Amino acid sequence: MSGICGLNIKLSIFGESHGKSIGLILDGLPPGIALDLEQIQLELDRRAPGKNALSTQRKESDIFEVQSGFFNGYTTGTPLCAIIKNGDQHSKDYSILADKMRPGHADYAGFVRYQGFNDYRGGGHFSGRITAPLVIAGAIAKQALAQQGIVVGAHILSIGDIKEENFNPLGVEDALLAELAKKSFAVMDDSLGESMQEKILAAKAECNSVGGVIETIVQHVPAGIGAPYFDSVESRLSQALFSVPAVKAVEFGDGFDITRLTGATANDQLHYVDDKVVGYSNHNGGITGGITNSMPVVFRVGIKPTPSISQEQRTISLKEHKDTTLTIVGRHDPCIVQRAVPVIEAVTAWTIWDLLLEAKKWER
Amino acid sequence: MSGICGLNIKLSIFGESHGKSIGLILDGLPPGIALDLEQIQLELDRRAPGKNALSTQRKESDIFEVQSGFFNGYTTGTPLCAIIKNGDQHSKDYSILADKMRPGHADYAGFVRYQGFNDYRGGGHFSGRITAPLVIAGAIAKQALAQQGIVVGAHILSIGDIKEENFNPLGVEDALLAELAKKSFAVMDDSLGESMQEKILAAKAECNSVGGVIETIVQHVPAGIGAPYFDSVESRLSQALFSVPAVKAVEFGDGFDITRLTGATANDQLHYVDDKVVGYSNHNGGITGGITNSMPVVFRVGIKPTPSISQEQRTISLKEHKDTTLTIVGRHDPCIVQRAVPVIEAVTAWTIWDLLLEAKKWER
Amino acid sequence: MSGICGLNIKLSIFGESHGKSIGLILDGLPPGIALDLEQIQLELDRRAPGKNALSTQRKESDIFEVQSGFFNGYTTGTPLCAIIKNGDQHSKDYSILADKMRPGHADYAGFVRYQGFNDYRGGGHFSGRITAPLVIAGAIAKQALAQQGIVVGAHILSIGDIKEENFNPLGVEDALLAELAKKSFAVMDDSLGESMQEKILAAKAECNSVGGVIETIVQHVPAGIGAPYFDSVESRLSQALFSVPAVKAVEFGDGFDITRLTGATANDQLHYVDDKVVGYSNHNGGITGGITNSMPVVFRVGIKPTPSISQEQRTISLKEHKDTTLTIVGRHDPCIVQRAVPVIEAVTAWTIWDLLLEAKKWER
Amino acid sequence: MSGICGLNIKLSIFGESHGKSIGLILDGLPPGIALDLEQIQLELDRRAPGKNALSTQRKESDIFEVQSGFFNGYTTGTPLCAIIKNGDQHSKDYSILADKMRPGHADYAGFVRYQGFNDYRGGGHFSGRITAPLVIAGAIAKQALAQQGIVVGAHILSIGDIKEENFNPLGVEDALLAELAKKSFAVMDDSLGESMQEKILAAKAECNSVGGVIETIVQHVPAGIGAPYFDSVESRLSQALFSVPAVKAVEFGDGFDITRLTGATANDQLHYVDDKVVGYSNHNGGITGGITNSMPVVFRVGIKPTPSISQEQRTISLKEHKDTTLTIVGRHDPCIVQRAVPVIEAVTAWTIWDLLLEAKKWER
Repeated sequence: MSGICGLNIKLSIFGESHGKSIGLILDGLPPGIALDLEQIQLELDRRAPGKNALSTQRKESDIFEVQSGFFNGYTTGTPLCAIIKNGDQHSKDYSILADKMRPGHADYAGFVRYQGFNDYRGGGHFSGRITAPLVIAGAIAKQALAQQGIVVGAHILSIGDIKEENFNPLGVEDALLAELAKKSFAVMDDSLGESMQEKILAAKAECNSVGGVIETIVQHVPAGIGAPYFDSVESRLSQALFSVPAVKAVEFGDGFDITRLTGATANDQLHYVDDKVVGYSNHNGGITGGITNSMPVVFRVGIKPTPSISQEQRTISLKEHKDTTLTIVGRHDPCIVQRAVPVIEAVTAWTIWDLLLEAKKWER
Repeated sequence: MSGICGLNIKLSIFGESHGKSIGLILDGLPPGIALDLEQIQLELDRRAPGKNALSTQRKESDIFEVQSGFFNGYTTGTPLCAIIKNGDQHSKDYSILADKMRPGHADYAGFVRYQGFNDYRGGGHFSGRITAPLVIAGAIAKQALAQQGIVVGAHILSIGDIKEENFNPLGVEDALLAELAKKSFAVMDDSLGESMQEKILAAKAECNSVGGVIETIVQHVPAGIGAPYFDSVESRLSQALFSVPAVKAVEFGDGFDITRLTGATANDQLHYVDDKVVGYSNHNGGITGGITNSMPVVFRVGIKPTPSISQEQRTISLKEHKDTTLTIVGRHDPCIVQRAVPVIEAVTAWTIWDLLLEAKKWER
Repeated sequence: MSGICGLNIKLSIFGESHGKSIGLILDGLPPGIALDLEQIQLELDRRAPGKNALSTQRKESDIFEVQSGFFNGYTTGTPLCAIIKNGDQHSKDYSILADKMRPGHADYAGFVRYQGFNDYRGGGHFSGRITAPLVIAGAIAKQALAQQGIVVGAHILSIGDIKEENFNPLGVEDALLAELAKKSFAVMDDSLGESMQEKILAAKAECNSVGGVIETIVQHVPAGIGAPYFDSVESRLSQALFSVPAVKAVEFGDGFDITRLTGATANDQLHYVDDKVVGYSNHNGGITGGITNSMPVVFRVGIKPTPSISQEQRTISLKEHKDTTLTIVGRHDPCIVQRAVPVIEAVTAWTIWDLLLEAKKWER
Repeated sequence: MSGICGLNIKLSIFGESHGKSIGLILDGLPPGIALDLEQIQLELDRRAPGKNALSTQRKESDIFEVQSGFFNGYTTGTPLCAIIKNGDQHSKDYSILADKMRPGHADYAGFVRYQGFNDYRGGGHFSGRITAPLVIAGAIAKQALAQQGIVVGAHILSIGDIKEENFNPLGVEDALLAELAKKSFAVMDDSLGESMQEKILAAKAECNSVGGVIETIVQHVPAGIGAPYFDSVESRLSQALFSVPAVKAVEFGDGFDITRLTGATANDQLHYVDDKVVGYSNHNGGITGGITNSMPVVFRVGIKPTPSISQEQRTISLKEHKDTTLTIVGRHDPCIVQRAVPVIEAVTAWTIWDLLLEAKKWER
């Protein structure tokens, strides 16, 4: 395996950056979900590169085409396939990538895993471009969740050491999340966002790159979703989140900080508000025992600096079987955090929807 | 689902703390693995409570009995079931747990998920006791991995704000890991360990609890294990790690700290050493593109303070449908980090073995 | 894999005939299903040997014990484990089974599959005894189905060339199915049943064995269960049915006979009866396009003669690596068809329940 | 679920007959399998309609295009997606299919399952056209199997009551199988094949249809493939075989006939031939205990008469909620047995390959 995931809505992705197309199958989609295709395209556009100086100037035509499973405006319940055709690729010579392994990239690990047979052009199946199908899956999930009143939102919490405020773990205005989704650089504090963008451009000027942290919140999730152990909300979400390239850390609620609290503080004490059980606090990020507890689901992911940098780096030559150096040429993202925001939201929405269906089996 | 996981070696766990027994089935174990049953019992003993003042004084009889799948000293290749009988339980009245939801625990989330039918005595299926079957699975995996030269080890990196040195990400002596496994409090620096234990006892004296961080290293894993996306090593490990109760954060390599580096530093540049491809550094924790890259696999998990504390806490009464307070009585762990060490090692060993079998399918 | 199956209720079985115990885990059982444990024991008793001259005189103590997942009379929603302890086994020498491969048995195939490490005593994991856990799963499923008005029943359609009437594919009286379930030899026509039993005893007298066909009907299944392709009702049922040892053939509706009809006859034409869509006929056995269509689900399985016979047979000696002969000693079933009836019903009930939960996800 | 299957090579299919395209993803394909794309097209051509009077005159352009997972002549090890574009469809009015349910078809069952949202045009996802992706999967599997010396072949055993000889269960010449694969009507005895074709044409002339039986053999499969219970070779193959539309019966070895033998005859006695363990007979169709035993794997599937016939039939009108009649117009296959041959071979090849990879995990 590698490209299939999900308990009830199986997501199967495929594609290489220089192949004919990339895409996905969603198997297990309930029938009768009204889908707004333009909204899906808008989500894809959020991820697309080439919009400003912060990202690679490559123009990718992320136009998706539904192949099946959608009829007269609604999901049919049969497998939904959507593809994104890859544009005509430069006849550029990529053979250097089959020889010199780029540091920080999957090149060497992938070479061993695929015994040298993988498509190395543009990173092949490891290309960040393969996250576009994830965005399609998430855009569909978001529409289904919205029909149940559930909202997924995210913001760039930090770029390098520039950090803005955390979301309020007790919940934020849905309008704020809608506003963030419209921004090309999703921060709450735009002046801080300016500083972050300057940091990115400074890294770019130095042929270098930077990373950052994305914080996500899922609001209005009912209590009782998830399960203890292997299908805990944390387990299912983290599996999906770590499948997004460059994610190296995931924490829920207070995350690593909770290890420095005492139980008396970390425990979210409970009370009734308007007949609903809620916490006075939300240090646990809306999940206890692996199951949602009615509070917002809150988590953060750490994203490493883009490994593609134009500085000379030490590496190996497989062909010559010796140490060498490599200077990567071409246009690269000096930071992928801002483009990863819709991807993180997408895998979150899809996972939460999948778990909602799991709980639905037991409805009386 | 909830209690089944794995691609090739399916681990299925069951049990409630006050039921007849707890246990597991391992389906897909290769035949012909020589198993030292005493070694499995030793791993269980590492997790068992009641050994000193740091943990609950409850005595649990964690004696496991293999039911199937083991014959003449070797795994048979058929499903291996092992059970641990629960001791005679106190005729104590647990009904308060069906009414007043303990803050920080799964009580309320579980009540909704299981529609009020779950066994609430001693936490039922959510009890930390259910990690004992995970330790059995891990102990078997460790023996299989050892036969391939792969070693899993861990240490307590921090308790509250007392923190010892990280493992050297380039690798440590296997002997150090063996030594740590023998310690009842697994730290490299025992004098720092004393301070940590004092902190735990101080929390206990105040009817409070503390958390901490465990760091794990897997040495001598070959390159090429794992896959991009949903079966990335990070995805599979994090799914397993977050299934351990109280884990709220997982990070690989430099984790959240890598987000503050630049690409020039974060990229692990490569060279040949003794004909093997290795990194000059290991900021990526041995995994690039979701696949092992020949460097040690290094990660940390954050464990929250034990939610069971004997202070009065605000909560709700389900029966009276109103706010109330609860003071939990009984013997509890003021810290579970030290007991979680063998559990974290166990799910790590089992996951890595599972991924090794995945790679074996493609061997030529 | 091998011992785990199911989309929503994962059934995981384990055990060897001469191990400590055999049993199962059911993961994904909905909470709140009232279970009558005595009824489960009655189903196990239907399968148990030693009741009359038709089956082996071995006495097996098929007393099951629930370990988890059941509390105060109801399923909890957490994994349900049940085990059946194996009685003290004869200190008999089984080593001949590790050397001389019994014809018609799994001995040689299993030896290769398990590389010689499997427990060969009494057939080990291949023993028909391992169907007892299937009966437990089915007995639980039957109770859940009964609460939805769905009834599973079966009869011995033939023993050798003695054949009774088929069930009426349009449906039979539920009372008939209840009556059949009480019979130790489940035929509708008891005088024909006498002839069948004589045939079995005649085979026994000749140290030989016979096979037969079991016909099953599932009544009152709603339309819309199942899916086209890999999760068709036929696909899911046949996977489960062929997992029962000795089953070599499965056919739905008219089965092989439908291949000799024309479309004009084979098509089940439709009409409304009491506002329900029903067929004028049921050549398709209640399934079209892999999905139930409101008609009873009807199928037949062919069961081969017991391979254990006491006649001398030609076989090989693995140790001496040469041809030899073998005369199996001990007490064996001259026919297992009558004991297989509750097993076939069991896997049917469990599969149908699993598919009902699948459909429940999409309820509005 | 519905459209995903497989233990190690996950096959995921999608498509509707009147959608944009149909296709598949194969996830888990080993890297480095040399693929002859023309050979895949030839297999698709075997299934394609419109070649002669025996099948529908619809011309379908079954030209497949690989999208990913194939590079420089070899599989890459990453997901392989292939699609077949649907031709421009007639602007024909299909709305009658949303109202009047065709007897023998999935129409009514599918309407309930998909809550009326499925694409009803031309049968939608239930269309026999969706078997084309199965043929692609099988064509790839056949090439991989051939590289290991394993051969899959099939013939039309019967059309209605005209039946030719069974394959010799001890094995046939590989050349015969190669010859059968080239025939447009795959029978060993061509004069009998003439009679069968006349029967089909006679049915066509009467606006009727006929069914038949296909017999398959897999030669040179090593012993030790498969497992007892749910992943038995019979279980895995039958799940795949029953996913082929119109299959209503599957039997292995002697199948239903074995129920009329005695154990003394049915048991395949063993001996060494050229140092290989083989049976004197093959009543068990190469599988004992769910595992291959070195003999050829032999089985038969029963295929019902095409439900699309142009005679008037009684059915219901969903819109008017009353009984009515329907006369299906258009071009249909009077028999699909001959076109099903490559489909049956395909799912067989893919399943056997999948099980071979399962066994590979345990290689030493």
